[in-house]
Amino acid sequence: MKALRIHEAHDLRLEDAPEPGYAPDEVLIRLGAGGICGSDLHYFAHGGVGDFKLREPMTLGHEVAGEVVALGGEVTRVGVGDHVAVNPSRPCLHCEQCLSGHSNLCPNMRFFGSAARFPHVQGAFAELFVARQDQCEIVPPGMDYRVAACAEPLAVTLHAAAQAGPLLGARVLIVGAGPIGVLLAASARLAGATELTVTDLQDAPLRVAMQMGATHTVNVRTQTLEGKFDVAFEASGSPAGLASALGALQPGGRLVQVGMLPSGLTAAPLNPLISRELTITGSFRFHREFGWAAALLASGRIDVTPILSASFPLSQAQAAFELAADRERAVKVSLVPDTLLTDGAGA
Amino acid sequence: MKALRIHEAHDLRLEDAPEPGYAPDEVLIRLGAGGICGSDLHYFAHGGVGDFKLREPMTLGHEVAGEVVALGGEVTRVGVGDHVAVNPSRPCLHCEQCLSGHSNLCPNMRFFGSAARFPHVQGAFAELFVARQDQCEIVPPGMDYRVAACAEPLAVTLHAAAQAGPLLGARVLIVGAGPIGVLLAASARLAGATELTVTDLQDAPLRVAMQMGATHTVNVRTQTLEGKFDVAFEASGSPAGLASALGALQPGGRLVQVGMLPSGLTAAPLNPLISRELTITGSFRFHREFGWAAALLASGRIDVTPILSASFPLSQAQAAFELAADRERAVKVSLVPDTLLTDGAGA
Amino acid sequence: MKALRIHEAHDLRLEDAPEPGYAPDEVLIRLGAGGICGSDLHYFAHGGVGDFKLREPMTLGHEVAGEVVALGGEVTRVGVGDHVAVNPSRPCLHCEQCLSGHSNLCPNMRFFGSAARFPHVQGAFAELFVARQDQCEIVPPGMDYRVAACAEPLAVTLHAAAQAGPLLGARVLIVGAGPIGVLLAASARLAGATELTVTDLQDAPLRVAMQMGATHTVNVRTQTLEGKFDVAFEASGSPAGLASALGALQPGGRLVQVGMLPSGLTAAPLNPLISRELTITGSFRFHREFGWAAALLASGRIDVTPILSASFPLSQAQAAFELAADRERAVKVSLVPDTLLTDGAGA
Amino acid sequence: MKALRIHEAHDLRLEDAPEPGYAPDEVLIRLGAGGICGSDLHYFAHGGVGDFKLREPMTLGHEVAGEVVALGGEVTRVGVGDHVAVNPSRPCLHCEQCLSGHSNLCPNMRFFGSAARFPHVQGAFAELFVARQDQCEIVPPGMDYRVAACAEPLAVTLHAAAQAGPLLGARVLIVGAGPIGVLLAASARLAGATELTVTDLQDAPLRVAMQMGATHTVNVRTQTLEGKFDVAFEASGSPAGLASALGALQPGGRLVQVGMLPSGLTAAPLNPLISRELTITGSFRFHREFGWAAALLASGRIDVTPILSASFPLSQAQAAFELAADRERAVKVSLVPDTLLTDGAGA
Repeated sequence: MKALRIHEAHDLRLEDAPEPGYAPDEVLIRLGAGGICGSDLHYFAHGGVGDFKLREPMTLGHEVAGEVVALGGEVTRVGVGDHVAVNPSRPCLHCEQCLSGHSNLCPNMRFFGSAARFPHVQGAFAELFVARQDQCEIVPPGMDYRVAACAEPLAVTLHAAAQAGPLLGARVLIVGAGPIGVLLAASARLAGATELTVTDLQDAPLRVAMQMGATHTVNVRTQTLEGKFDVAFEASGSPAGLASALGALQPGGRLVQVGMLPSGLTAAPLNPLISRELTITGSFRFHREFGWAAALLASGRIDVTPILSASFPLSQAQAAFELAADRERAVKVSLVPDTLLTDGAGA
Repeated sequence: MKALRIHEAHDLRLEDAPEPGYAPDEVLIRLGAGGICGSDLHYFAHGGVGDFKLREPMTLGHEVAGEVVALGGEVTRVGVGDHVAVNPSRPCLHCEQCLSGHSNLCPNMRFFGSAARFPHVQGAFAELFVARQDQCEIVPPGMDYRVAACAEPLAVTLHAAAQAGPLLGARVLIVGAGPIGVLLAASARLAGATELTVTDLQDAPLRVAMQMGATHTVNVRTQTLEGKFDVAFEASGSPAGLASALGALQPGGRLVQVGMLPSGLTAAPLNPLISRELTITGSFRFHREFGWAAALLASGRIDVTPILSASFPLSQAQAAFELAADRERAVKVSLVPDTLLTDGAGA
Repeated sequence: MKALRIHEAHDLRLEDAPEPGYAPDEVLIRLGAGGICGSDLHYFAHGGVGDFKLREPMTLGHEVAGEVVALGGEVTRVGVGDHVAVNPSRPCLHCEQCLSGHSNLCPNMRFFGSAARFPHVQGAFAELFVARQDQCEIVPPGMDYRVAACAEPLAVTLHAAAQAGPLLGARVLIVGAGPIGVLLAASARLAGATELTVTDLQDAPLRVAMQMGATHTVNVRTQTLEGKFDVAFEASGSPAGLASALGALQPGGRLVQVGMLPSGLTAAPLNPLISRELTITGSFRFHREFGWAAALLASGRIDVTPILSASFPLSQAQAAFELAADRERAVKVSLVPDTLLTDGAGA
Repeated sequence: MKALRIHEAHDLRLEDAPEPGYAPDEVLIRLGAGGICGSDLHYFAHGGVGDFKLREPMTLGHEVAGEVVALGGEVTRVGVGDHVAVNPSRPCLHCEQCLSGHSNLCPNMRFFGSAARFPHVQGAFAELFVARQDQCEIVPPGMDYRVAACAEPLAVTLHAAAQAGPLLGARVLIVGAGPIGVLLAASARLAGATELTVTDLQDAPLRVAMQMGATHTVNVRTQTLEGKFDVAFEASGSPAGLASALGALQPGGRLVQVGMLPSGLTAAPLNPLISRELTITGSFRFHREFGWAAALLASGRIDVTPILSASFPLSQAQAAFELAADRERAVKVSLVPDTLLTDGAGA
């Protein structure tokens, strides 16, 4: 079978790989579609993400859906033929974090396509891949795999919305209209926010934000952000974005940091945290929200079609990655097996 | 009557001032004792605090207790002869913040001895001063005024403890053993914290911290801070202190920023907020905690005698301020009217 | 002008009344429409609600909207000609409850059309009525007054949803499909609940519940309630409903009691509160949620047209009350001034 | 070895039993002391507790401490010779409850000396008994085993205090001064409650409550309960106690139900839950609080000696149970092996 492996920065290869084996509590899955994430782009552009550097070739990919094709002997949760959205998180389920409802913070986490551990945990941009049965959420057979693969980033934003506390009636600011920012708009709206302002430096993603539930957008390169907010989501990962979000909060306001900040020190206007009693909370990946995300996409209650920019076969991954890096032209770019998308062109 | 007025940095004068008038909902109070606070020291050393610069002479002082000597016509809460701890906060009681239980964030706040507004709000280091009746908490007649005056800084730390959320069973770190740091030790212990580690750069205040309820101390100049904490209180107001506190938190840990950070930007290691889902919350002054503080001091449940370093008459205020600025020799220095402390020397 | 006054049970009269005066912070409003509430029906059927008995004639009505026709001298919030949804709550804004963000629990509350105090607080089913300026929420000029009048019951259910804590991703049970039950469906869905099961003893209101956002309904007379829920709203006010809701909660589940329970003792299966660590919280009226409700109705984000069953002129109030009491035929019945609805028949 | 087994109501026998075997993750413990709990008294008096009826002979006892005498092969947490307070809870650690920080609600719980399952889970009133290593908390070698055995009921009350939310500055009511009620006084005080009123029908336990931290007591047979409370703990398990507690709460007050209510229906004045927005939460056993309790007892921060009424050898268990049932004479009665207490009389 074929797997999409990164060897070093800019060296992405669709290679032959042995068909993976699976344990009694695992299933074998045939890829339906996978979404390219910002961290995939980082591995491609820089050979690493933050402190995690490639030390061996690694199959990328953690936003995936597919069809179950074989089962380990103990599997009861899914059956052969089921279509599944696949949670890339595999926590240990035994540590203090796992036993207190915070498995997303498990220090023993194995996360698809990540160089955080060595040997690296292989990802799922491959014709076949393996997951533990509890990583699988069944979706309807007719559901577009590209939509199902969005369960992962949607789970990220639902978790961030949960970290914010109650959003019913809230005035919400979202800084950054990348894939996470626009899914945050959908998630915060789902949670009952009534005003949803999204900011970015470019117009194209702001238009997508409006389609995903924003009520206002501000291009901070050309417009001034006005108003005061109860809650802010910082999804740009930039110090300027953080400063902007802190400045726009009401006394008692809450900021959820979702975008990865630079490692090392970040210079930020923290003094007003005191005089306005602001709160900053981090949000990292997700937990039970993956199941919510799969169900919300399956029922159509959240519609991600506005963010699906283009699809490429695995064999054209390099072109897919290049498009995905262009924020004016793409939000979410999907990869599908060549057998499923034979026209050879982004659709 | 005499009032202790600051004219500019290092220019502190005990001057004659007219006896103040009082409105129907106000009372006239004869000073019993006042504590010198870090912000008083800032006005003395720098002619201002943060963004607030002296623009006219101002009576200092906001940690005070005394005896009620006259009443406005509508006053029912206290009577002549009552001894009172005096809350220096005078919120408007009409704004959105006041009507939602956050009067400490009132934008119309009038706070004793503060140059935040112009004309400045006069303070209470004076033989006579005026307060609205709801600023007064009656304390027992035999209570030491210097203890009663500690209701203010104790209220600051009780509010910070409340901002931290439940502390029962918590492992707590307190960065900085100034007056606020050591009262935080007492407050967090009162709230049920079971491990209380206090850090500082000097040994003398750490010894006071142990007397106030700390279970461990670390002089970070000579020792290494070890262990992981559920909650941290940053009471040094320094970027290094903030970095130290963030580094010592467990996943899911909460940091309460109590010490005033520099205005402008603070460089801090904010990246782990995300991967460990830490929370930073600011704490500003206090609200209903002032009444708690007065009652806790009156009942003896919190004993502040270990922090009372020395007492000076108002006429020797300059010597008092100089001692208060020396962290090796003093934690809290008290001022009393000359008529109450006639020996002319710090006791 | 005419006012709809209840003299005793079943004695409802449209009477001449003097045009009301207004204070400097009050406005005079011409009625646009009013909704008949369950408590109005209680006064009509029983001459009282719970412990509150009629002791003098009282104008009914607290779900109202209309047009501002005159202003007191201090009014700045609205202008003549504005269309407003009118909050029937008039808290004192000075008590401990009002100053802590719980004005809905104000012991000095004056609530339109209520016999809780004596003299009774007059209601707003009258051609003209008076409100304090902060009771008014401006709505768009073209908005149906009958919709705007629904801001009051919608605020009740938004407050109940807020009392429940976060609902994002929650499985929710609503017991009782009266006007409050079906608006709870809309409110819990707005707050992000993903499963919404509504129960009742009749089919007609359950059909409305589906239109308002329920995902499942159960007629408990003919069907069995299955499933386990994270949150339950008890909106029937019956001991049987409470028992049913408690029985259907997951360990750690939360129940919000919205329906008025009988005064005196209620027999309930409280033992499982302990072994499953359930929580019961009461929800009483609303606070800032009235503004949310008016805005949600104005923007169309919540559509109440499925609950608007019929409209009657004030002169046919008795017929309106009789229809409103028939749960098979009506959810919400509106009253409008005769001048606005001249055809003399329910529409 | 000897084990204290209940065969049916009033039929308690100290019998020979085989020495128990232990699994690789288990340890063998020699009993140091055990406390008699209310549920032990129920088995003795009625042959069951609530819905759980004896169906076979069962060793009683779940408040125990002792010395580790042998280790399974995988044990790392304790060593032979360690003195341990033993947590009687043995959750499955795999279910949804265990994985969300609520192992006290585990449906697969095995709890010492309980007839909830069949075959019954044997208790620890035996010369030797077995526990999983994670059930063991090491205590200092010199610590009185009777004190260490109080870790279990203290954990119950610490959990209840945690269920109440923040208690700092709170006015707290505790209904019922049994062993749980008086330990609630100590726990709520530890958590920062400033007013602690305990009620009971008898004077003797109220005197113990004062020794354990209460600030006021009320014998409700002879005195009237006055005042309003922020938080109430209902520890009597009686409908009258529940009604009394609900009646004494401030608007927004919280009640934690700790005492087991009768199975079936409880008649309670639930109507004010709505108009005062009260909250009732159940509290069931404990979780991480067992470790807190052992540490608090070991450090002496909580002193339970006022509740230790008398000690009996296992061979005089019947006399011990009879004394334990007499609330005028005893709070907590301890059982110790005959070899440790050879004088044959309660001490």
